[in-house]
Amino acid sequence: MIAILKHGTTPEQTQHLVKWLEHLNIGVHISEGEEVTVLGLIGDTSRIDMDLLSSLDIVETVKRVSEPFKQVNRKFHPLDTVIEIGDAKIGGGHFAMIAGPCSVESEEQIIGVAMAVKQAGANILRGGAFKPRTSPYAFQGMKDEGIKLLLKAKEATGLPIVTEIMNISTLDLFADVDVIQVGARNMQNFDLLKELGKTNKPILLKRGLANTLQELLMSAEYILSEGNENVILCERGIRTFETVTRNTLDLSAVPALHELSHLPVVVDPSHATGKAKLVPSMAFAATAAGADGIMVEVHNNPACALCDGAQSLTPEQFAALHRKVMQIREVIL
Amino acid sequence: MIAILKHGTTPEQTQHLVKWLEHLNIGVHISEGEEVTVLGLIGDTSRIDMDLLSSLDIVETVKRVSEPFKQVNRKFHPLDTVIEIGDAKIGGGHFAMIAGPCSVESEEQIIGVAMAVKQAGANILRGGAFKPRTSPYAFQGMKDEGIKLLLKAKEATGLPIVTEIMNISTLDLFADVDVIQVGARNMQNFDLLKELGKTNKPILLKRGLANTLQELLMSAEYILSEGNENVILCERGIRTFETVTRNTLDLSAVPALHELSHLPVVVDPSHATGKAKLVPSMAFAATAAGADGIMVEVHNNPACALCDGAQSLTPEQFAALHRKVMQIREVIL
Amino acid sequence: MIAILKHGTTPEQTQHLVKWLEHLNIGVHISEGEEVTVLGLIGDTSRIDMDLLSSLDIVETVKRVSEPFKQVNRKFHPLDTVIEIGDAKIGGGHFAMIAGPCSVESEEQIIGVAMAVKQAGANILRGGAFKPRTSPYAFQGMKDEGIKLLLKAKEATGLPIVTEIMNISTLDLFADVDVIQVGARNMQNFDLLKELGKTNKPILLKRGLANTLQELLMSAEYILSEGNENVILCERGIRTFETVTRNTLDLSAVPALHELSHLPVVVDPSHATGKAKLVPSMAFAATAAGADGIMVEVHNNPACALCDGAQSLTPEQFAALHRKVMQIREVIL
Amino acid sequence: MIAILKHGTTPEQTQHLVKWLEHLNIGVHISEGEEVTVLGLIGDTSRIDMDLLSSLDIVETVKRVSEPFKQVNRKFHPLDTVIEIGDAKIGGGHFAMIAGPCSVESEEQIIGVAMAVKQAGANILRGGAFKPRTSPYAFQGMKDEGIKLLLKAKEATGLPIVTEIMNISTLDLFADVDVIQVGARNMQNFDLLKELGKTNKPILLKRGLANTLQELLMSAEYILSEGNENVILCERGIRTFETVTRNTLDLSAVPALHELSHLPVVVDPSHATGKAKLVPSMAFAATAAGADGIMVEVHNNPACALCDGAQSLTPEQFAALHRKVMQIREVIL
Repeated sequence: MIAILKHGTTPEQTQHLVKWLEHLNIGVHISEGEEVTVLGLIGDTSRIDMDLLSSLDIVETVKRVSEPFKQVNRKFHPLDTVIEIGDAKIGGGHFAMIAGPCSVESEEQIIGVAMAVKQAGANILRGGAFKPRTSPYAFQGMKDEGIKLLLKAKEATGLPIVTEIMNISTLDLFADVDVIQVGARNMQNFDLLKELGKTNKPILLKRGLANTLQELLMSAEYILSEGNENVILCERGIRTFETVTRNTLDLSAVPALHELSHLPVVVDPSHATGKAKLVPSMAFAATAAGADGIMVEVHNNPACALCDGAQSLTPEQFAALHRKVMQIREVIL
Repeated sequence: MIAILKHGTTPEQTQHLVKWLEHLNIGVHISEGEEVTVLGLIGDTSRIDMDLLSSLDIVETVKRVSEPFKQVNRKFHPLDTVIEIGDAKIGGGHFAMIAGPCSVESEEQIIGVAMAVKQAGANILRGGAFKPRTSPYAFQGMKDEGIKLLLKAKEATGLPIVTEIMNISTLDLFADVDVIQVGARNMQNFDLLKELGKTNKPILLKRGLANTLQELLMSAEYILSEGNENVILCERGIRTFETVTRNTLDLSAVPALHELSHLPVVVDPSHATGKAKLVPSMAFAATAAGADGIMVEVHNNPACALCDGAQSLTPEQFAALHRKVMQIREVIL
Repeated sequence: MIAILKHGTTPEQTQHLVKWLEHLNIGVHISEGEEVTVLGLIGDTSRIDMDLLSSLDIVETVKRVSEPFKQVNRKFHPLDTVIEIGDAKIGGGHFAMIAGPCSVESEEQIIGVAMAVKQAGANILRGGAFKPRTSPYAFQGMKDEGIKLLLKAKEATGLPIVTEIMNISTLDLFADVDVIQVGARNMQNFDLLKELGKTNKPILLKRGLANTLQELLMSAEYILSEGNENVILCERGIRTFETVTRNTLDLSAVPALHELSHLPVVVDPSHATGKAKLVPSMAFAATAAGADGIMVEVHNNPACALCDGAQSLTPEQFAALHRKVMQIREVIL
Repeated sequence: MIAILKHGTTPEQTQHLVKWLEHLNIGVHISEGEEVTVLGLIGDTSRIDMDLLSSLDIVETVKRVSEPFKQVNRKFHPLDTVIEIGDAKIGGGHFAMIAGPCSVESEEQIIGVAMAVKQAGANILRGGAFKPRTSPYAFQGMKDEGIKLLLKAKEATGLPIVTEIMNISTLDLFADVDVIQVGARNMQNFDLLKELGKTNKPILLKRGLANTLQELLMSAEYILSEGNENVILCERGIRTFETVTRNTLDLSAVPALHELSHLPVVVDPSHATGKAKLVPSMAFAATAAGADGIMVEVHNNPACALCDGAQSLTPEQFAALHRKVMQIREVIL
């Protein structure tokens, strides 16, 4: 870590700061330039509060020379992480096609969709059992019953399943779930991340609505630091001023995360855009950007043609999407 | 709730949608205008997924006519809520001056600051025991030991205390804590909110970094809907593109929340700005905007003059701030 | 336009508003529902100030039923606009590959880059002569001299050229320029847009850093409303909280704009990301999202290998990018 | 300026960069630390493209040690600038109360409002003659006729006037205008700023919707660098995700700008919030934050009680606001 002191800092002030840092067991290497004095901080700088340091009157700026994330860092782990999920693999050249309904609604529904998406090319089934909802009065999912139905769909199709956890006290219910999802609103629920780090389940970690890529990687670091190396990062749109789409899908996140980290990156165009019409284009774009997988909402309700306008695709639309995604994969590999 | 259908929607499409809504036990009143057809939806519309409805091809727009929050809504509870915290009161003309260090560090520190801020005019003591940190390697607070020290400071000064909870499994530790704080990152940790709703402790609910005022009120609704009416809302800055301040303090939130809800609103200028120099101005502004309380970081470290530049004030600075805040209160009341 | 009145509005208040609207030559169709009263406003509603109307005490919400943009609207012009630029075409299945240096620096440089990008597949040359710069002390471009050099490069290679205008008083200098660019900071310089609308030059209109797609289309409407139908929309990244990239490239804008408008849409991944390493992935993604063209910075400075890290690609990198872009085009068409 | 090189940069790479900088007439002072190499850049660094430099592969980070703004910088001009506008003064302890209608609509209207706001305590009259509008079909103001009416109101009341310029070609019309306003959308219309810098008129420079404070100061620097030192900065809300208010008023901008610059700072709560109900609270808050003036919309339409809900206050509401603003001024001075 580097601290640049302001022009005009007195030697006494500099010494005062150096002593304070040494008191924190930080070695300090002083480099006096013509314009500024630069302090090189050596030792376990991860415990230094950068905000505090940079807000000191005599400090011009503070900069970490090394990223604050270690285990997720590609520098220390150059090869892509490959995560095995049942018969599927993700990362390091392996691509996951995750599809399924927003919420599990009934046995008939989830098995129907599962069979349809499997036939259309999906290799992992998604479906919400615990649903985080802005309103306490909104449907909160079928909960444990929903997980049981997902497991039936897994049995019926052989597809591994991914579903969201909201509360560590429900962990036992996820014993046969293949991938545990952490939703955007829980990306910085650090106690939940630590507990999931003690399992060996693959974790699908969604980026928070207003979180930077560095914060996403730090949250992944929480999981790895407890011993679980099976983390899949997920870009699902960030909150901006634009209103045509529900969120703004940040596809630069895909190559940027690949440069910073060895973990696989999937993209969820359904939640990001909130509009089925935009989902195929964004799935193609995510694939072209180098994503290791796509996560798409698919419904299976032939009686309700109205739903075609919503963020879910029909199985037919998903099958068409799948074919082009695979062709784009071939171009960019 | 109102759904406006697009120009050109066929009667069959309209009937299709009406049947689907009636299937959800929603009554529909159709009003055909020259340009558009408007559906008035009657019944328990809180269960309707607005995102899905508004994304249908034939739907131009969907609008709730009544706010989705009920118990926190001023319409149904016109009088200000007044919350009693030890000898202090907040809301309905009562003002809270909450002060203390960012983190509890030692018995000497927390009792020293508590005595100093009490003398300077604070009527509630703040201090972090469980610290949510972006990095797993950063100091995470003194935890249960920190709470014990806060209780000692409470005993020594008589000041009621407020401190943050991160995990419902630690609730027992908060038995003698006067106000439980929910941090910005947990504002949409709905399971935590529900559990806190089952207690009768005052809850200080901080706005999330990228959450709208409506979402803040919906999170408060989670607490009230479980039976706990003692919620204090807290504006602490939102995430924007500006970098001079750590976050952007949204002071319009104060009168806007007061119009929408009967709950008291406090403002935290220390975390919002991240700079001690800006804290007094923002504390004055928050008071002038009508806040029911101010929450300020105060340190007590005469040995470390360096810290003056950070987001914490000295007790002397806080005392000066307190005097002017009280004068501004008199002007605006 | 639809105005929904609040529950509890009195007949007198309603009549008061209706009279005010009729005074503005707006016809009003009143539809009284059980929960709300809906006013259908008929006539030239484009002159109504929606902000004022929606801020009235008795008004719940105001909604345009028709989009405020007319001439750029796909509803009234279903076929894609195709714009001819020298031998190149853009839109309606025609793809433009626009490449060149950030700034024109010398005759040798611009002709060198022009020849290199032509050989690598570009069909339009870009280069900045007038440079909008945050600082008055920064290099502001070679100005009229820069335009002359661009014209020499055009002569040498046959490539049509695109370059930015900052001030309508310099329009004469652009007589032989093929496409006039309006930069992000001038997207709402309405007087400039109107003047460009009086020419028949193709205009490349860049989205402002914090402008919505609707605002972009309204700015295009300014140009078309004066008679110039040759507008190319350009997504170049929006301002968000993320710092890894200079801006956040909003690729959902591509299919969303195509749905709303018949105008061609190009994407500039160089300015959006600010990092050469991310440019190819984002160029592929933009192509997969359906963009009608890509605009990429290419430098030609063999002496300065250092520059490889900046946002400009070498001609070799651009040639490789071009090949894959063309392959992705084939997949998605 | 400081450039910190990445760990692992070779001496050849460093020399390559140093030569390139020296080629730009920048002196380089190399300081080799244990972890990093720091280059101190000496000379006219304002011409260095920081984005380019920081995007080089071997560069960890680039930091200006001195702010890029000079003439607006408080460091080089410690005393507050005081600007005289007719009988009014602003800055350095002088407070301006600017009030008037959004748009000039008729002689009767503007003279009526001018007399009302003068009596209520305003010392400067505002009113829009040229109106920047998102839509080409919306009312664009009375233009030169509007300016004439403003001048009549000035004559009738003695109040100096402020009104917006959109296009430098109309400058002659502003000969008797006291303060020329540059709107948010033109904050980075650099050619307009330069031309206004050649006049000696006070310029009210509004912050752009998505512009940082540093960018606002750089735009002010454009005006001062051409010789005009009479610039008043104006905070008027920034674009965020929140929808309850039209924009988010960033009041931390007031003390932050005062720390960085000697120029006066006024606040416009009317445009920021878009709601009359919130204007008084935000005017009080702005005053408490230390603003040098408040700019408020006031209408004078006794026939149209409906308008009370919009962003404009009645003269009576403005008079009440004025009294409390003055009392808050007394507290904080």
